[in-house]
Amino acid sequence: MTALNELTASEAALVLASGEASAEDLMRACLDRVAKRDDTVRAWAFLDPELALANARAADAHRRAGNALGPLHGLPVGIKDIIETADMPTENGSDLFRGQRTGRDADCVARLRNAGAVIMGKTVTTELANTNPSKTRNPHNQEHSPGGSSAGSGAAVADFQVPLALGTQTGGSVIRPGSFNGIHAMKPSLGLVPREGVLMQSHTLDTVGVYGRSVEDLALIANSLSVFDSTDAFSYGGRRPDLVASPEDDLPAPRFAFLETPAWPEAEAGAREAIERVVAGLEGRCVHESLPSPFERILDYHATVMAAEMVPYYGAMIDASPDKASDLIKARLAAARKVSAGDYVEALLARGPINDDLASLLDRYDAVLCLPATGPAPHGFATTGSAIFNGLWTYLGVPCVTLPRLSVDGLPLGVQLVGKPGEDGKLLRCARWLDRELGG
Amino acid sequence: MTALNELTASEAALVLASGEASAEDLMRACLDRVAKRDDTVRAWAFLDPELALANARAADAHRRAGNALGPLHGLPVGIKDIIETADMPTENGSDLFRGQRTGRDADCVARLRNAGAVIMGKTVTTELANTNPSKTRNPHNQEHSPGGSSAGSGAAVADFQVPLALGTQTGGSVIRPGSFNGIHAMKPSLGLVPREGVLMQSHTLDTVGVYGRSVEDLALIANSLSVFDSTDAFSYGGRRPDLVASPEDDLPAPRFAFLETPAWPEAEAGAREAIERVVAGLEGRCVHESLPSPFERILDYHATVMAAEMVPYYGAMIDASPDKASDLIKARLAAARKVSAGDYVEALLARGPINDDLASLLDRYDAVLCLPATGPAPHGFATTGSAIFNGLWTYLGVPCVTLPRLSVDGLPLGVQLVGKPGEDGKLLRCARWLDRELGG
Repeated sequence: MTALNELTASEAALVLASGEASAEDLMRACLDRVAKRDDTVRAWAFLDPELALANARAADAHRRAGNALGPLHGLPVGIKDIIETADMPTENGSDLFRGQRTGRDADCVARLRNAGAVIMGKTVTTELANTNPSKTRNPHNQEHSPGGSSAGSGAAVADFQVPLALGTQTGGSVIRPGSFNGIHAMKPSLGLVPREGVLMQSHTLDTVGVYGRSVEDLALIANSLSVFDSTDAFSYGGRRPDLVASPEDDLPAPRFAFLETPAWPEAEAGAREAIERVVAGLEGRCVHESLPSPFERILDYHATVMAAEMVPYYGAMIDASPDKASDLIKARLAAARKVSAGDYVEALLARGPINDDLASLLDRYDAVLCLPATGPAPHGFATTGSAIFNGLWTYLGVPCVTLPRLSVDGLPLGVQLVGKPGEDGKLLRCARWLDRELGG
Repeated sequence: MTALNELTASEAALVLASGEASAEDLMRACLDRVAKRDDTVRAWAFLDPELALANARAADAHRRAGNALGPLHGLPVGIKDIIETADMPTENGSDLFRGQRTGRDADCVARLRNAGAVIMGKTVTTELANTNPSKTRNPHNQEHSPGGSSAGSGAAVADFQVPLALGTQTGGSVIRPGSFNGIHAMKPSLGLVPREGVLMQSHTLDTVGVYGRSVEDLALIANSLSVFDSTDAFSYGGRRPDLVASPEDDLPAPRFAFLETPAWPEAEAGAREAIERVVAGLEGRCVHESLPSPFERILDYHATVMAAEMVPYYGAMIDASPDKASDLIKARLAAARKVSAGDYVEALLARGPINDDLASLLDRYDAVLCLPATGPAPHGFATTGSAIFNGLWTYLGVPCVTLPRLSVDGLPLGVQLVGKPGEDGKLLRCARWLDRELGG
């Protein structure tokens, strides 16, 4: 029998519902794993075992009392430490926020609690969710990076320390750690999940994402977070698909458009060969395609938007306490200040035509298939790895999923699927099909 | 009896409905006035009298046939020459577009035609609706500017050459010519009127506005243009007030907050004295107020946004044919390219807090009252005058109206009222009350 802490969230929910185990049992199993592995993996920025157990016991009491239960009832969730939590510190991976306790839950955390989730602790983020590497190590090989910026969330889920976690993506901060750590990850459409209470780096890009151990896990947690936020101009109204619905629906086998993307020249040979084997194995179901101009400029567009918007959100606070910021982020800020407004507006305006071209492609295919990273997790800790296969999709605001189905040089590598904005439910159905096809 | 071409649009509509005069009679009166005055005022970029008369006769035939009539039936309207018209050229005041015929109506022009309006001709715009002065002269004194960029629309309505006209405002291009030419003008809320088919200079600022000879005229034409445009992220959905409704409603006498605004130090002594007499005359109905920080930086914020967005819209086309652009606009483009993206994003983000402060003020008052310009129309043609009392409101996207009720040095000066975004109907009711109070 699988250890409680190694179950998928969907499996654990069934075990808790059956009464075979309690939320406290599940939390103890997770905490035991942390106790054994934390010296090596270092995934947590804050973890108070007594608080976590008390929260789990409260969930059990709620269940025993016969109260209504949410879909995440009793499931532990790790929260990236740039997302506010009422009962835990929120330090944003930065000395600028050392010891900060805001005393309130971010909207997404409140929704998790409402769905019954037990907030286990805060997971390590790189400094201000930027590129300065963190203390966290890749659980598959501690000589390698877990990626960033959602380093702790990716590593903790991969290492069976927690079944579910939240991350955020501005460049590649959800999908890349998902690929590097060999787990399932989803960056939803921009506007699916409220960002209130999440450290803002770029309003055009920042997206709350989720980690789990199966496509069903991603759907389960993302569905609890999908809601319109009237205070966020990027949140979308209108119909919201039920991401969990129709798990056994009779979707015809999907067709995929393989895109090398302009990041392809940066990919390692092993990663290229691995993804091309997937494409070949899918035979007629996956076709090499391309997108017209100005798609080839998309990497620059993303970098321009990310840099420009960092200035008002981070500039003043780093200037006020430069001793509390790394040289790396100060250098990035200095470079960002040189971006011209004209280039930035041009980059924003280019999204429309590129999204139109992508939508036309996705009228003919069910999803785009592409690499999620240039290769497996890099050796050493000089960088968190390249986000070049992620920023382009973050820029477009489209939903992305990575499936842990490849291996290169003994390390995990994902397969990334990309859908139309707002069609997160369809993307998850395609992902479930492909995940099974690839042996999941 | 008032000559046909001197009637307000609202009066002319009644005359046409009664059968006392035809649309052709009205158009002939307007064309006669143009024939007499065009050498002096030079308000038209394109005017084909036979085409205008044919369009008027078509309106008369439509009426005689007993067909349904729109609220603007038979009324001549002048269209600023940056707005596309199917049957007339659209030259954008620039050699870059000399002779351009797009063969299609802008959305707002199509809506005017659907409401029964007779498009009379295209009115002069400054070069690309920017600051390079045009050939048009102020009808009150030909040694003075008519303002800009909607120079021809403002001058033609003031000179009784046409009862109604469209303009556009990015800085102060609707309200300032309204004030300088001594007529009623309205820049609606950003998002009230579709911009499709209008030359884009700044998506954050560009707003289609209207000219008339009374507040009722403004309501009449603006109401025909108010519609949601799903292709424009700045167009707003939800409830749209009927701007014409309740002309005799029992609105209690409104209360006004007088704001000097950060532009006040630039105002001429005569203008300051004139507006302060209005404030004093309103006694308890108008109170000196102020807005907190960051309102004092609003002039810079507007200038930053206007410059930054000009780059992608105008940069490439001016670079491609620099001989077809003035030195003035080339110098503005060069300066705009030096604006940093960080400053631009900061300027965009500052709108929210300032609009919140303004909304709080307008919870206690019905409208803001302020100067519409630094003084009357400037002497000579070196500039179109300062837009410093307008850009701040364009930046906030709030509705503005100017009433031609002041005179300084023998030239007209308006009184500007400003409301909450989307509350154009309430602003027009306040404007009608004040217009009567000031002798309209």
